[in-house]
Amino acid sequence: MPRPSVKEEIVAAAVRVLHQRGFNATGVQDITDAAGVPKGSFYNHFESKEALGVEALERYWQGALNSLEMLKDDSMPPVARLKSYFRKLNDLGRKFKYRPGCMVGNLSTEMSDQSSLIRERLAGILARWTRAIEDCVKQAQSDGSLRRDIEAKAIAAFMLNSWEGAVLRAKVDRNSVPFDQFELIVFTSLATGP
Amino acid sequence: MPRPSVKEEIVAAAVRVLHQRGFNATGVQDITDAAGVPKGSFYNHFESKEALGVEALERYWQGALNSLEMLKDDSMPPVARLKSYFRKLNDLGRKFKYRPGCMVGNLSTEMSDQSSLIRERLAGILARWTRAIEDCVKQAQSDGSLRRDIEAKAIAAFMLNSWEGAVLRAKVDRNSVPFDQFELIVFTSLATGP
Repeated sequence: MPRPSVKEEIVAAAVRVLHQRGFNATGVQDITDAAGVPKGSFYNHFESKEALGVEALERYWQGALNSLEMLKDDSMPPVARLKSYFRKLNDLGRKFKYRPGCMVGNLSTEMSDQSSLIRERLAGILARWTRAIEDCVKQAQSDGSLRRDIEAKAIAAFMLNSWEGAVLRAKVDRNSVPFDQFELIVFTSLATGP
Repeated sequence: MPRPSVKEEIVAAAVRVLHQRGFNATGVQDITDAAGVPKGSFYNHFESKEALGVEALERYWQGALNSLEMLKDDSMPPVARLKSYFRKLNDLGRKFKYRPGCMVGNLSTEMSDQSSLIRERLAGILARWTRAIEDCVKQAQSDGSLRRDIEAKAIAAFMLNSWEGAVLRAKVDRNSVPFDQFELIVFTSLATGP
């Protein structure tokens, strides 16, 4: 396997460091140190920390696509897929003691008002994420397991936004209660029938 | 009226600046400049920017208590109070074009893993906020307008966390759709009866 390029090493390190510490607490040197490359090499590959932030976000999202695949697994009923999907994300939160949270959520609150480049990339990622959930919600509405009196798109966006809110609270409280409440209430209250 | 003390001016400025820009993007000098006081006066009053962050959060919360009073207004049915309360918060978001978001939510994602002092204050504020909502949820469960098969405390925490998630998404998308979805789905899906 060829050695990853310096650019590749910087992006991979930026995902780790920006996810953990956020954008403004991180300097370019923190990232090049984490990547094990000379600080001077940074500006050969990126115009700015902001430009790297956009690439790191996209890389983080690409890494999240694997889990999203389970929403398409039609060997399981669609509601079970949605539950398993969010449970998998929550297990990941638990594994890291709720500390890093979600990089998309973290940069949404920290950077939306400070960088239009980062805000636009966040908007694109959140829209794609919502659509992936929406497809599964539609199937659950078709088979009668989720209520149909609310648009699938609204339910999907609400699920995602509420999940981001649960992650935020879990980061503060350092326990899984917000995840448990999310799962209980979202799936009880949006289900049809007993 | 006596002139506000230097300490008071610093705390008031910190609420504005930390709410808008976050913690790590703000230097002590940004805050003393916004307060119109000499930078040198800062350390006469605060041990650190972190200590000021804790005081600013508490001040922000004290400012939010006024709106919370409407949850106790028993001239309105409890569900109507909850709806009006969140609508009032959402109107405030709209007024500022969704840009600053909620200072509690912003610092939750940015600072929980970086400052235990700030994290503990956030946990205290979120617990008090949840309790205020819970009291109103209990009344709505008693009068039969919210479902009773889920604990009031869980519903209250879920409402607050989901609202923080809606604020986060509105910050990215710069529109009120997440607030509208929050209101529609929370109150439709947790209501009893038609």
